[in-house]
Amino acid sequence: MTKTQMAERLSEFHLFSDLFPTQIALLTNKTKFLDVSRDAILFNQNKQAHGFYLLLKGQVKLGVESLDGSEKVIRLIQSGQSFGEESIFSDHTFSMYAYTVKDSQALLISKEAILDIIDTDVKLAGRMLSVFSTRNYQLVKDIKSICLQNSTKRITDYLLQINRTFRGSDCFRLPTNKTIIASMLNITPETFSRVMQKLQNAGLITVNGKDIVINNISGLHDFK
Amino acid sequence: MTKTQMAERLSEFHLFSDLFPTQIALLTNKTKFLDVSRDAILFNQNKQAHGFYLLLKGQVKLGVESLDGSEKVIRLIQSGQSFGEESIFSDHTFSMYAYTVKDSQALLISKEAILDIIDTDVKLAGRMLSVFSTRNYQLVKDIKSICLQNSTKRITDYLLQINRTFRGSDCFRLPTNKTIIASMLNITPETFSRVMQKLQNAGLITVNGKDIVINNISGLHDFK
Repeated sequence: MTKTQMAERLSEFHLFSDLFPTQIALLTNKTKFLDVSRDAILFNQNKQAHGFYLLLKGQVKLGVESLDGSEKVIRLIQSGQSFGEESIFSDHTFSMYAYTVKDSQALLISKEAILDIIDTDVKLAGRMLSVFSTRNYQLVKDIKSICLQNSTKRITDYLLQINRTFRGSDCFRLPTNKTIIASMLNITPETFSRVMQKLQNAGLITVNGKDIVINNISGLHDFK
Repeated sequence: MTKTQMAERLSEFHLFSDLFPTQIALLTNKTKFLDVSRDAILFNQNKQAHGFYLLLKGQVKLGVESLDGSEKVIRLIQSGQSFGEESIFSDHTFSMYAYTVKDSQALLISKEAILDIIDTDVKLAGRMLSVFSTRNYQLVKDIKSICLQNSTKRITDYLLQINRTFRGSDCFRLPTNKTIIASMLNITPETFSRVMQKLQNAGLITVNGKDIVINNISGLHDFK
């Protein structure tokens, strides 16, 4: 990827869309293009962060792992989304690992360049605060869902949430495979299949592989 | 509390310790002193935030509640700590409620005043980013603990974490009651009591009401 193309992608990104060309140039000089196949580790838990990532293409899961190798997926990153910002504003290491689920292309934007710009550009700092605030909100929502909602409610909420991102249509495709979705919802893949079957039997959804049609939104919302 | 006392408390607070006297005066004018007895709600889930809180005295739990009234405590606030910042940097409402566990005194610092100062003071924005980053880190750690660790490991980690804040001594007092600690760890109060008894029987800790002595740190760390 050429420097010009990188500069273009960076200036399209919502956090950077108000930056001056000189600031974009500074960022571009401190940004690396990564082209990685699926099943690769972009960063690991407990490693120092040298920057944060903007996914251009592919799919990445962010997760945590216990000593015995059990995994919990925290977030699924789609192209156009960024991740890893949290670790550049404190001395913490990465709290999660990042693993490519599909062949992926990403930009790694150096910590040093971001901190340099933020030092003088309060607008960027404000946008970053808003990003962090939203992440925080989502993490609290996840904890609530894991601790207080049964698996059926977690799944119906998840389907309704994806559906909201496809406005004007009640058909959508699940963004990733069953195992990853189940891990995000902290249930087993078997429970996910079983509940999806139950929702289909109740006439609320129609499932065709990864393609879902919601037949009855309010019914899905109220299903217990 | 007089305006002068409020100004003093605000300038001692780590986020504001580098602000100029004129900035502290601006904040003080937009800050309310709250004196509330225990078992009072400071704010509720899904309400708009008008500011964030600095606890001067007492104890506050931040939690989420499900429709059926089940509770999950997310964070316990001690005097000198702040909370509710996340909701002033986005259009989100509060993701949690805040409830006083003890008679409490707090300062409510208005959103408007903070945003005014941050608009021109990039240093404050940077400190706030660091606060958010740490919160984020802690929430991910909590999700990991809830999803991937058994209740014994959650409790030993919790005890070791409190112990680290009392450097130089292996005696400390539990910061709050059993029900709140159990809710933070997403276990029942009965499980908490049972595991504490097990740790005592193994000679790793000595429990006397809320007072704990750790007799064997590495044993506690490795206990399964």
